[in-house]
Amino acid sequence: MSASSPLLAELIDALRCLPGVGGKSAQRMAIQLLERDRGGGRRLASALEQAMERIGNCSRCRNFSEDEVCAVCANATRDPHILCVVESPSDLAAIEQATGYRGQYFVLLGRLSPLDGTGPEELGLHALAARLEEGEISEMIIATNPTVEGEATAHYLGRLASAAGIRATRLAHGVPLGGELEYVDRSTLAHAFGGRQAVE
Amino acid sequence: MSASSPLLAELIDALRCLPGVGGKSAQRMAIQLLERDRGGGRRLASALEQAMERIGNCSRCRNFSEDEVCAVCANATRDPHILCVVESPSDLAAIEQATGYRGQYFVLLGRLSPLDGTGPEELGLHALAARLEEGEISEMIIATNPTVEGEATAHYLGRLASAAGIRATRLAHGVPLGGELEYVDRSTLAHAFGGRQAVE
Repeated sequence: MSASSPLLAELIDALRCLPGVGGKSAQRMAIQLLERDRGGGRRLASALEQAMERIGNCSRCRNFSEDEVCAVCANATRDPHILCVVESPSDLAAIEQATGYRGQYFVLLGRLSPLDGTGPEELGLHALAARLEEGEISEMIIATNPTVEGEATAHYLGRLASAAGIRATRLAHGVPLGGELEYVDRSTLAHAFGGRQAVE
Repeated sequence: MSASSPLLAELIDALRCLPGVGGKSAQRMAIQLLERDRGGGRRLASALEQAMERIGNCSRCRNFSEDEVCAVCANATRDPHILCVVESPSDLAAIEQATGYRGQYFVLLGRLSPLDGTGPEELGLHALAARLEEGEISEMIIATNPTVEGEATAHYLGRLASAAGIRATRLAHGVPLGGELEYVDRSTLAHAFGGRQAVE
């Protein structure tokens, strides 16, 4: 391919920066855009450029935002007393889409991982502690992922909350909806069993 | 997501023009670029813009090219007497990468498909016929895909070649390397059986 068009070779190579896109997919994407959707390609180019240049992080919750303070933080109708802490903007998006949560967020942009050099500094935990000290938050929902590092982060966050005298809660672990007990992994089942609730 | 950043929502939506990319993948791509690879994102934006604006089709072989005549057609060291006809630039790339073919190409940018309104006009078959009439080509290799429409196109191309008194050849059909006879589909096996060759 490179022999026939350097620009095309460059495009194919550049497309490989996308996650999950290898050489073959990149070639297919480039050729399909050129053959059938140049308008879409142009629109993607300008959206990429704008996003890379202008999207920063909200100074309050660290979520992606092109403004100093993101739309969620700036929204006066949201409950200022509950704070949900997530690892990444995609977790925030998932919670926004799936639940009716109307409180505040704090995005860690990572999880505690000493081996990778990610400590409390990188996760902005000082800013979080300062925000908890403000006294407006009454509940902190810890919504880190149920992985080893996510659990360690949750533990750290729980200590932060108790130091500020704030109630900390975690997302419930248990059997996923639509799952069958037979196929649920042991530790999830143990969690679900231990966390059984009274039938109302 | 859209609530927190309109630019991000726009980027996620624009990424969906890529083949095989749905809402979830687009969101993952956008967030990964923003979190970890803004340089790659900027490079992709500029490569896309350049490619969409400047890549046209070679006036001789119809392959993608940013110049009037593509590098393959302009290459004086390539054999001017053999012409390989393919459906798309990706087929050309596959042949270039896999074989030592050093002749010319002609790219149809499609296949005969009357139901979709793709006739000889759209495939540039008049230009191809004119080129065959020039008298320089002595063999035309028909490398359309072995699909129903590809076969119909091959049949048409064969007639074009015989009208110009040029020898036409087709890629060999048969058992793929590394395949097992047991699992090869019937018509491929029948082709391979019919086209058996003498052991040298």
